[in-house]
Amino acid sequence: MSKEFNRKVYLQDKPRQQAKDELIQKANLLPEIETVPTRNGLGRVTALPIFASLSMPHYHASAMDGIAVRADETYEAHEQRPLHLKKNQQFIYVDTGNPVPSEFNAVIMVEDLQEVDEETIEIIAPATPWQNIRPVGEDVVCGEMILPQGHTLRPVDLGALLAGGVLELPVVKKPKVAILPTGNELVQPGSPMKPGDIVEFNGTVFSSFVQEWGGDPLLYDIVVDNPEHIRKAIENAADEADMIIINAGSSAGSKDYTVHVISELGQVYTHGIATRPGKPVILGEVKGKPIIGVPGYPVSAYLALEWFLRPLVYHYQGIQEPKRETLHVRLGRRVVSNMGAEDFVRLNVGFVNGEYIANPLTRAAGVTMSMVRADGILVVPPESQGFEQGETVEIELYKPIEAIRKGVLFTGSHDLSIDIVSSLLKKKDVNRQVISSHVGSLAGIMAIRKGEAHVTGIHLLDPETDTYNLPYVEKYLAGEDVVVIPFLKREQGWIVPKGNPLGIKTLEDIVEKGGAYVNRQRGAGTRILFDSLLKKHSLTSEQIQGYEREMFSHLSVAAEVKEKENSVGLGVYSAASTMGLDFIPVADESYDLVMTKSFFDSEGGTLFLDVIQSDEFSRMVEQLGGYKVVRNQSSIF
Amino acid sequence: MSKEFNRKVYLQDKPRQQAKDELIQKANLLPEIETVPTRNGLGRVTALPIFASLSMPHYHASAMDGIAVRADETYEAHEQRPLHLKKNQQFIYVDTGNPVPSEFNAVIMVEDLQEVDEETIEIIAPATPWQNIRPVGEDVVCGEMILPQGHTLRPVDLGALLAGGVLELPVVKKPKVAILPTGNELVQPGSPMKPGDIVEFNGTVFSSFVQEWGGDPLLYDIVVDNPEHIRKAIENAADEADMIIINAGSSAGSKDYTVHVISELGQVYTHGIATRPGKPVILGEVKGKPIIGVPGYPVSAYLALEWFLRPLVYHYQGIQEPKRETLHVRLGRRVVSNMGAEDFVRLNVGFVNGEYIANPLTRAAGVTMSMVRADGILVVPPESQGFEQGETVEIELYKPIEAIRKGVLFTGSHDLSIDIVSSLLKKKDVNRQVISSHVGSLAGIMAIRKGEAHVTGIHLLDPETDTYNLPYVEKYLAGEDVVVIPFLKREQGWIVPKGNPLGIKTLEDIVEKGGAYVNRQRGAGTRILFDSLLKKHSLTSEQIQGYEREMFSHLSVAAEVKEKENSVGLGVYSAASTMGLDFIPVADESYDLVMTKSFFDSEGGTLFLDVIQSDEFSRMVEQLGGYKVVRNQSSIF
Repeated sequence: MSKEFNRKVYLQDKPRQQAKDELIQKANLLPEIETVPTRNGLGRVTALPIFASLSMPHYHASAMDGIAVRADETYEAHEQRPLHLKKNQQFIYVDTGNPVPSEFNAVIMVEDLQEVDEETIEIIAPATPWQNIRPVGEDVVCGEMILPQGHTLRPVDLGALLAGGVLELPVVKKPKVAILPTGNELVQPGSPMKPGDIVEFNGTVFSSFVQEWGGDPLLYDIVVDNPEHIRKAIENAADEADMIIINAGSSAGSKDYTVHVISELGQVYTHGIATRPGKPVILGEVKGKPIIGVPGYPVSAYLALEWFLRPLVYHYQGIQEPKRETLHVRLGRRVVSNMGAEDFVRLNVGFVNGEYIANPLTRAAGVTMSMVRADGILVVPPESQGFEQGETVEIELYKPIEAIRKGVLFTGSHDLSIDIVSSLLKKKDVNRQVISSHVGSLAGIMAIRKGEAHVTGIHLLDPETDTYNLPYVEKYLAGEDVVVIPFLKREQGWIVPKGNPLGIKTLEDIVEKGGAYVNRQRGAGTRILFDSLLKKHSLTSEQIQGYEREMFSHLSVAAEVKEKENSVGLGVYSAASTMGLDFIPVADESYDLVMTKSFFDSEGGTLFLDVIQSDEFSRMVEQLGGYKVVRNQSSIF
Repeated sequence: MSKEFNRKVYLQDKPRQQAKDELIQKANLLPEIETVPTRNGLGRVTALPIFASLSMPHYHASAMDGIAVRADETYEAHEQRPLHLKKNQQFIYVDTGNPVPSEFNAVIMVEDLQEVDEETIEIIAPATPWQNIRPVGEDVVCGEMILPQGHTLRPVDLGALLAGGVLELPVVKKPKVAILPTGNELVQPGSPMKPGDIVEFNGTVFSSFVQEWGGDPLLYDIVVDNPEHIRKAIENAADEADMIIINAGSSAGSKDYTVHVISELGQVYTHGIATRPGKPVILGEVKGKPIIGVPGYPVSAYLALEWFLRPLVYHYQGIQEPKRETLHVRLGRRVVSNMGAEDFVRLNVGFVNGEYIANPLTRAAGVTMSMVRADGILVVPPESQGFEQGETVEIELYKPIEAIRKGVLFTGSHDLSIDIVSSLLKKKDVNRQVISSHVGSLAGIMAIRKGEAHVTGIHLLDPETDTYNLPYVEKYLAGEDVVVIPFLKREQGWIVPKGNPLGIKTLEDIVEKGGAYVNRQRGAGTRILFDSLLKKHSLTSEQIQGYEREMFSHLSVAAEVKEKENSVGLGVYSAASTMGLDFIPVADESYDLVMTKSFFDSEGGTLFLDVIQSDEFSRMVEQLGGYKVVRNQSSIF
């Protein structure tokens, strides 16, 4: 195969830890020192121990407002025998912070003085030597070590340094990290996009990570897929930076020049690690600078950066990598893993009925939203085949435990209004947010039954009674302590391309005019509605082109419809209007909420109800079009 | 008293929590929104929910390198009946990320292909529809909510935003915090200093705190103590900033103009809170902007900022204040507190024999080093009179628990070499550091006996045997599991002002030439040496001018000597040389280490020993002068 001429097999996949240890050991990082003004030192890392060059105070200072005296001239003062002292001979006035001249050795505070006349003060108790005096160096003594090397400077450190006369100080230079995005398909954010173009956003993410870890990112222009260009870019980066990240070009795909270029210019230690995702990583060096080739898929890339770049950046600065919090959680779904590689599974976590329940998110390496949504990550060791549903596992957290504890676990049918609830809830309490899984109405009901969600949203038509939702709740949640909350009326309709090129008006039109139908997954309310329409019109699924393929949300259906002139989907108005598509109403349906009684009674439940009953919420949802919020809901138990 | 004309009594001290709640409620913060490029969004807080304006991918994309096909044309492919497909008619080549044209609906990966000729490919298994294709919007669907409002942007969020076509976004403007340092005694860092001058370092500390909390500090020039200047500065700040900090001038001392000016320009809610330190705080508003008057003493000021400014800054941004970790510790010393006010006690914490032991640091409000050294803070409630030695209390931590767990608790005689050990130890492991209390040799031995320290450093002359240290260990640590490590030989001598104006050579000279002696505290090795010299020369302490006043370290003695022409102290050479003083050798002494056996055997102990036996350590210590490091120590059990 002509296109395969330079395809290569991975070197044998290396365990992650081994690859990392090797990289750090061979990197032989030599941090450089630079001098910064102490004023600008926040967050920098001391490169040497720092000693005071000034005492603070640098003179004997009064600790009070009052008078400075000689203690031995006050011994006779007594309540019954007040003593008079003469100004400028036996005392002087001092304020807090004033120097106490060397002929005096005590300060009497103003509250203990009685003024006799302009020149005379009366006291009724003796002063003890050195009372109310801050001696030279009480705070910082010249010559003392204020901070060791390797210390990350906090605000209070800067105060002590300036007090100790340290106006500038040696800190570790931030390691410069060159970031090279490669690929002909990449375009800068904001450029006009044609099919096949991909926005170069990894560079921004990488730069931000580098900043967070204390490094100095150098984001280079996009390098085209061409060995000569890649070679030049790497050589240039190796001259300018302390370490190099090259993005994409690290898979064993057809344009895999990177590994060849690196081995020509320097050395490849590792090509391929035993992880999923993240496998096609390259680790090596060029001109003595460590270089990391990370996969193009964002999730793989972010994980690879965390595994290999983060330790390098911290190591260079001589400080320890901060550790993530961990948490024991019960798995709401099974996690399958192939043996031989570590598996990294992103998860949502919720606190339901006194237990932390975790549900795996998509494992696709290209889904940046999975990193945004993830509450934590589960590492499945190479020797494991995964974990069963219900098993307890330890995970690393991406969010503070408080945010997880307060999160509202929503599992059910997708509706845009749930995002609005989430945003308004967070406005009330920044740690509260809806963590939603779009699994469809029926699966949502099951999640409530299994105690794996706080709330579900359902729109399930019962064809026999022609009513929504309650028949299903009665059937599947009989005996459970749940609350049904009438929530929204919304329009379902045909979503068709702008201008409705096929002229779809009815279900029959789809069959007759050759519409390519975009279906929803089994158990979704919209799927049940469609199937009941089929039945009503005496049609079968075989007559529907595209019936087998399943989408998981209204927006996905709309996005798919937008792709193809002859396509049609069933969904809500807001999804069609967001995508600039046409909409032909089919049915008004009830989208209602079901929540566990314990959530309903909780603080989170109260806030949730406050939100959905607020004017702001109604306004925002009804603005989307096709919605009518049910106000003054009477909850059904 | 003429100076007291404008002195005022505090309004009744208000409980801290009440003062804070009032401040926040009355502040009525109205955050402003600004638009920033997504690329620069790291750490900013979203002001509104953010929706995708582009799907990612925005076309059906191949998820693999391979060929795009029509699935229904591949159904017959089988291992026994390979199928041939024609290029550009039945398939096209695609790489990962390439668009899949709408006439195709599946991708077969390159590993499953056999090239027959330039135009023909052979497959041996059918493709299922949509296999290896990333559908439009798999990652982000146009119109979906990527982030709620009130979300602090992380690197991964920026990736999802750019992928979703969000190139700029509305964020909460960082609150501008005006910082006004006031006081005639203040000078900018780096200015020449005369007695009474104080370096203005609080402004830098405040600015750094504001930055850490997400605000935008505006540090103003120093304002002199004059009501007109203060008025102008505050009015100006109220126009430019969202909140105002005014430093010093908040005590009920003689120059207390601030509270008057604030009540003239706006409103004072609180003057004086029931805390120690931190009491003289002013809370109010000017032109609708919250203003906080904080005391001049740094520790009071930092605490006041944390209590009142931090919640304002976070509140403005609509995000929750992060909480500090807490820890239960056993008190190594008693903590006394007056009733009626909350007491804030800074502490050192060490992990000794499986227990967290906390020792209070100085409570002086002027000691910035106590904030640098503190591992945590204990809040004694207003209704409590304090805690007994040995009591278990809960404290807030200033450091990660790991650093506390790994800290080496050194309690004993001060020597500069211990700072060097600390710095080198941190170099080996950033979380290991020596936490030292300078209490003198005898108290150090007692700390080991009570299980409240890992290591002590002692230099105790036994006059009867004329030997150092071992007699004391045998007397006080008999039966304890400890290890004695011969450590340093060092010179003790008279520390006198440059040029030795009194011509001190011997102890008799001090008495005869009227030297003002600077003494050390009871139990300090240097004190015991001095007392034994007195005895040897048949002198009494009454003959020694200054004998009663006690300093707690060599450097403090030297700093004190530097203050007075006729003074003299006893101490080590390095202290004299650091301060530019003269030194007349008196005795060579042994400064040795005693550590618990369990520490000796621990990982920390091993590292500690590695450090003190290293060439680097010897070199650094001997460079100080007057030291000889004992190498190849044989430990004594």
